[in-house]
Amino acid sequence: MGSQVRVLGVDPGLTRCGVGVVEGSPGRPLTMLGVGVIRTPAEAEIGQRLLLIEQGLEQWLDTHRPELVAVERVFAQHNVSTVMGTAQASAVAMLCATRRGIPVTLHTPSEVKAAVTGSGRADKAQVTAMVTRLLRLAEPPKPADAADALALAICHIWRGAAHNRIAAAVASNPRTREYRR
Amino acid sequence: MGSQVRVLGVDPGLTRCGVGVVEGSPGRPLTMLGVGVIRTPAEAEIGQRLLLIEQGLEQWLDTHRPELVAVERVFAQHNVSTVMGTAQASAVAMLCATRRGIPVTLHTPSEVKAAVTGSGRADKAQVTAMVTRLLRLAEPPKPADAADALALAICHIWRGAAHNRIAAAVASNPRTREYRR
Repeated sequence: MGSQVRVLGVDPGLTRCGVGVVEGSPGRPLTMLGVGVIRTPAEAEIGQRLLLIEQGLEQWLDTHRPELVAVERVFAQHNVSTVMGTAQASAVAMLCATRRGIPVTLHTPSEVKAAVTGSGRADKAQVTAMVTRLLRLAEPPKPADAADALALAICHIWRGAAHNRIAAAVASNPRTREYRR
Repeated sequence: MGSQVRVLGVDPGLTRCGVGVVEGSPGRPLTMLGVGVIRTPAEAEIGQRLLLIEQGLEQWLDTHRPELVAVERVFAQHNVSTVMGTAQASAVAMLCATRRGIPVTLHTPSEVKAAVTGSGRADKAQVTAMVTRLLRLAEPPKPADAADALALAICHIWRGAAHNRIAAAVASNPRTREYRR
């Protein structure tokens, strides 16, 4: 079933940036290693808020040493009032991971929902319920941003494994090697 | 007339991030200290591109030691195909400056155009022509992103001075002090 992988999921946001660390491999029980939210004050300047997010993420990376980072993919069409902050927080997450040489993957909200609930249109309550069940938690993680970060990590463990198998097959086959990436 | 200030202007973008350093004070001739573009390959992963922008900006900050950084304010409404990359590149610029304790100001494209041409609706050619004239350059800076970065720095020197005078007046008056932010 493949070896264990430790993933930090990041649900980016300026006011609340959800973070969750999950370890596991497809077909085996998953383990939550940590969950939380990095908060920044709305009245602070944008540069200061991004710096607080960077410092918070650096602590999470130091503490948990994830092998992969999964970040929610942000779309310009969504929620115009918060989309710029979300995009900027996601940039900080991608930068922190890449600086350490940790691979980053982006997953769309519907990929994440489909991975943990079976439906790309599941609501937040359903995602939280499934995250709680899949990680065998005594109670649901709060706030919702924290549950979403865990869902991202789970999604990555399950989807990433499929991607990795395909990538490994391609890489090991000299006839397909040139088509990689 | 105030003292000289050295400003790094950043026209954020993932493919081309314009940078320009201008020194001056309102009412006195301006001096260009450097201009350029940080480029990242479109085929690279987004985290890698953000890292290249960070490394490029760090070099500019090391070389020119600006006292202020002016970044173009990005709006969610604009140019949906590139807006996310622009927002993410601007986050890196704000983060690099704030990490060094350098104040960051955002200016809208129309503020910048109005500052250097007198019209918030000026086209790129007009902005480039005025930047060339105001900095007494032998030829127009290229590409356009580089000219825009210089225009941002000029805008900041001129507008920032007015802001600073108001802020100083407010700060020195105990009756208005509580309204600061």
